[in-house]
Amino acid sequence: MSAARNLLLLSSSRLHGHGYLEHARHQLDELFQAKNVKTVLFVPYALRDHDKYTATVRDALQPWGYAVEGLHTQPDPAEALRKAQAIFVGGGNTFVLLKQLYELQLVELIRELVLKHGLIYVGSSAGTNVATRSIHTTNDMPVQQPPSFEALALVSFNINPHYLETAADTQHKGETRDERIEEFIAYHSRPVLGLREGTSLRVQGNLVTLLGDRNAKLFKADGSAVEYAPHADLSFLLES
Amino acid sequence: MSAARNLLLLSSSRLHGHGYLEHARHQLDELFQAKNVKTVLFVPYALRDHDKYTATVRDALQPWGYAVEGLHTQPDPAEALRKAQAIFVGGGNTFVLLKQLYELQLVELIRELVLKHGLIYVGSSAGTNVATRSIHTTNDMPVQQPPSFEALALVSFNINPHYLETAADTQHKGETRDERIEEFIAYHSRPVLGLREGTSLRVQGNLVTLLGDRNAKLFKADGSAVEYAPHADLSFLLES
Ligand SMILES: [Ca+2]
Ligand SMILES: [Ca+2]
Repeated sequence: MSAARNLLLLSSSRLHGHGYLEHARHQLDELFQAKNVKTVLFVPYALRDHDKYTATVRDALQPWGYAVEGLHTQPDPAEALRKAQAIFVGGGNTFVLLKQLYELQLVELIRELVLKHGLIYVGSSAGTNVATRSIHTTNDMPVQQPPSFEALALVSFNINPHYLETAADTQHKGETRDERIEEFIAYHSRPVLGLREGTSLRVQGNLVTLLGDRNAKLFKADGSAVEYAPHADLSFLLES
Repeated sequence: MSAARNLLLLSSSRLHGHGYLEHARHQLDELFQAKNVKTVLFVPYALRDHDKYTATVRDALQPWGYAVEGLHTQPDPAEALRKAQAIFVGGGNTFVLLKQLYELQLVELIRELVLKHGLIYVGSSAGTNVATRSIHTTNDMPVQQPPSFEALALVSFNINPHYLETAADTQHKGETRDERIEEFIAYHSRPVLGLREGTSLRVQGNLVTLLGDRNAKLFKADGSAVEYAPHADLSFLLES
């Protein structure tokens, strides 16, 4: 439990028909304006081209009144994190992102800054995966090997971002998304929140709220599943 | 290079409209009959229920004249492997399978038996992933963490089983299959063979042949891609 925790975990940074982060603008404004955030420290490690990725985020956030700095340009990343008001951890490849966070020895530091000192954490896609207890429920291809699948553990449950039902009438024999998540639960007996594109999870202290205009699907530890509507209180997940 | 190598790597054990392994029956018959194989040692670790999985494989192979034993029922798995004529490593979850092979300390042993002593290796899906140099190009969710992504390295390149093009007109913002494979290549500069369901790779010594009635798509180390027709000679991949 953490009273300082202040998170916004997006399923994705892009939503069909919207510009980059546009669907989440209102959520970001509320989060940042409440703490008078002027500058966001961007963590670009989930994609290869850190400069280009930072420019994409800057192009989105700057017109809304937020300056953006890339963590990769900071001479002392740990010091930059300690001074930051808010960080945004962008999507890309979850394995690549977590490997880099471990290599830079930032996992424990970010965890402490967020849970004890109220550093605002915004994650999207892979940035949402690494915010949870582990990356076991990422959709990404394991193109790099991090030293551990254990992640920042800012929340005690797992999330599957970009969640969607795979059409059941396909002739393809690969697993459906639901089968993959159920496989995780069979081995771990822990819940997984399937977060559809366009939805987010807001975590304020020990209060967890579903944002966006679509349901989320919770895969429970007992193997059953239940849908939650926008604005549902999901705080109970922190007890899992 | 290995003159003893004798592999059949299936994209999948199931093909739409066919029974379990049925689409590969002719390939299996050719492989097994040439060496007078009577009994196949089945490696069931990619799925949770080893008994049930072994029964599925037995129900398929026994009517074709091959006895099936489960490796998990052997009091000494290493000794059982040394005595085996042929092993079949079934699909399921690649991470779970490779973790178990490492825990049982079978990775080096299988590699040696196949490359030096001619143990016949049949793999399907996850069983094909672990036969290659690494599991970096699996489609599976990382529900368990093996100590390494390095695998049996029976061949020196990577395979993506169940390969298919993802429809480009989707509104979903997750990566397409091609994007995932290209991401691997961007980090590793190594080729990946996209093996469509219904196709197999036959490796006899240093001769590699595409089997089945569909093309395979080779993603080359330089980022380009090329299609190969059934019966194509892909031996050059062993030089990669
Ligand atoms: Ca991704
Ligand atoms: Ca699988």
